[in-house]
Amino acid sequence: MTISHVAIIGLGLIGGSVGLGVQETLPHVATSGWDHDPETRERAAGRGLVGRVYETAGEAVAEADLVILCVPVGAMEEAGHAIASSLPEGAIVSDVGSSKAHVARALAKALPGAQVIPAHPVAGTEKSGPDAGFAELFRHRWCILTPAEDADREAVSRLSAFWEALGAKVEVMDAAHHDLVLAVTSHLPHLIAYTIVGTASDLEDVTRSEVIKYSAGGFRDFTRIAASDPTMWRDVFLTNREAVLEVLGRFTEDLTALQRAIRTGDGDKLFDLFTRTRAIRREVIEEGQDDNRPDFGRKDH
Amino acid sequence: MTISHVAIIGLGLIGGSVGLGVQETLPHVATSGWDHDPETRERAAGRGLVGRVYETAGEAVAEADLVILCVPVGAMEEAGHAIASSLPEGAIVSDVGSSKAHVARALAKALPGAQVIPAHPVAGTEKSGPDAGFAELFRHRWCILTPAEDADREAVSRLSAFWEALGAKVEVMDAAHHDLVLAVTSHLPHLIAYTIVGTASDLEDVTRSEVIKYSAGGFRDFTRIAASDPTMWRDVFLTNREAVLEVLGRFTEDLTALQRAIRTGDGDKLFDLFTRTRAIRREVIEEGQDDNRPDFGRKDH
Repeated sequence: MTISHVAIIGLGLIGGSVGLGVQETLPHVATSGWDHDPETRERAAGRGLVGRVYETAGEAVAEADLVILCVPVGAMEEAGHAIASSLPEGAIVSDVGSSKAHVARALAKALPGAQVIPAHPVAGTEKSGPDAGFAELFRHRWCILTPAEDADREAVSRLSAFWEALGAKVEVMDAAHHDLVLAVTSHLPHLIAYTIVGTASDLEDVTRSEVIKYSAGGFRDFTRIAASDPTMWRDVFLTNREAVLEVLGRFTEDLTALQRAIRTGDGDKLFDLFTRTRAIRREVIEEGQDDNRPDFGRKDH
Repeated sequence: MTISHVAIIGLGLIGGSVGLGVQETLPHVATSGWDHDPETRERAAGRGLVGRVYETAGEAVAEADLVILCVPVGAMEEAGHAIASSLPEGAIVSDVGSSKAHVARALAKALPGAQVIPAHPVAGTEKSGPDAGFAELFRHRWCILTPAEDADREAVSRLSAFWEALGAKVEVMDAAHHDLVLAVTSHLPHLIAYTIVGTASDLEDVTRSEVIKYSAGGFRDFTRIAASDPTMWRDVFLTNREAVLEVLGRFTEDLTALQRAIRTGDGDKLFDLFTRTRAIRREVIEEGQDDNRPDFGRKDH
C-alpha cells in the first residue's frame, strides 16, 4: 500500500518543499496543509505549496494517511496535540526535525498509540518561510529515518518509498546515533558559524563596515549559515544538548592544539592538518554532496 | 604614467588570474611570468596566463615596470632575492599576500631601496595552481594597498589604477590594521574551518563515511574553505600570529558563553544572537559581497 494523501503541518522552507515535491513527482497523491501563521497560510495557498490549505491542523490531517510535521523541534509536541483528535486510524505521523530523540519523546507524549516514524531530510538552505521552498530540495540528499525498534516495518517501507520518490536517498538509524552524527555534520557547524559572525560584529578595533567589505576572504560563507532560521536553530541546540556539547568539547580541544601550533610556530602541524582536510573535501565531492565548481559556482555580482 | 609591462612571479590561482585579467582588460600592457615549478611554467604557457613564461625570475622581470609577487607569504623574501639583481630601476614591486606587515619586512630585507607597495586582493577560491585562475576573479572585490608612510604617491596611484582596471575596488590602510581586519574576515574563518573538518574526521563514534554523507547539513561549506592551499595558509598563520591569536581569543570567549547558554537552556540568548547574525548576512548581500541565491546558487548534482 502506498501513500495516497499527505498532510503537511508547517508550511515553511521544508514543508513547502515537500508539498511542491509531492505535486511534481507523485501527482496522484493528494496534499493538504496548515500553518499556525495566517499570513503563511495565505502565501502557501497563493503559491500552491499544497493542494489545499486548511484553517485548522485538524481539518488538514483528517483525510491523510501520512502526516509530516514540518515545525521547529520545540513545537513538535504542540503540533502533535493539535492533530491528535483528528488523526485517522493507522496514519503514519512523521516529521523533518533535526534532533530525533527529542521528537520521538515529544510525539509519543502528544500522540500515544499513533504510528510515529521520525525522519530527517538532511537538506535546506539559509532561506525560510513559505516563499523559500522548491520541489528539488531533497534530490540527491539523504533522509534519515529513526523508527523505534517496535515500529511497523511496512510503515517504514512506505515512508522510505515516499522520500525516495522526492529524490532522496534513505538511511535508517537509531535516534541517538542520528543525534550524534548530525551534531557533527550540522549542529556544530551552525553553532560555530553563529559564533564567529557574532564575534566579528562585536569587535571594537575593526568596524562592522570593514567586516562586511572584506568578507570575501572567507567570512561571507559563515554569514550564509548564520542567516538560518533563529527559532529552528534555538530549538535544535536546546533539544540536542548532550551531543552538541560532546562534539563541541572535541572541537575546542582541537582548536586549542592549533592555537598552540600557531603560537609556537609549528608549521608542520598546520600543514599536515590542512592537507588532511583537503582530502575530505575530495570525498564530499566524489560522494556527490557538493558542487565542485570553484566557490560553489557563486556568481559575480 | 601608467603601467606598460607587468611581471608576475608565481603562476597559481592568483598570479594566473592577474595575468588573464591584464590580457583581457589592459591588452596594451605586456605580461611576463615565472614560477619556481617547471610543470606550472609549462601549464601557464599552455594556458597563456601571461604573454611569455620565462625560465628564470630575473628574465621575467627584466623589462617590467610593475612586478607582482604571487607566492605564499613565507616565500616572499626568497622571491625578492630571486629578482633583486634584474629589477629595473624605478619598477614598482607589489604582491598579493594575506599578511602585510610580514611582507613589508621581508621585501625591505630582500630589496633594499626598491619601490615596494604591498597589496592584498581579497579574492580567491578553494582551487589552486595554474589551472585555477580566471580573468574575472577580482571584479567587485576589494584590493587593499598597504604602502609605507614614505611611499611614492604617484606609484600608489598607478598601482591603484592597475587593480581598478582588473575590476577591483581599492582601499589604502596601514599594514597592522590590515592584518587585524583580515584576521577576522579571513584568517579566523579558515582556521575554524580547518579545525572543524579535522575534528569531524577524527571522531571514533561517527564514521568518516557518515560525515561525508550527511555533510549537506552545514559541514560541506567548511570543507570547501578547508580545501584551500595548505602552504599558503600555513604561511598566513605563521606570519600573522599575533592578530590571529587575538581574534581567536575573542572567538573562544564567545563560544564559551554560547556553550554555557546551551548547557543552561538559555534559549533567549541563543535566539538573540541568531537574529543579530541574520542582519549581518543582509548587509553582506546589500554590499554586493555575496550571491543572494539560496545556498550560493549551488547546483544539484
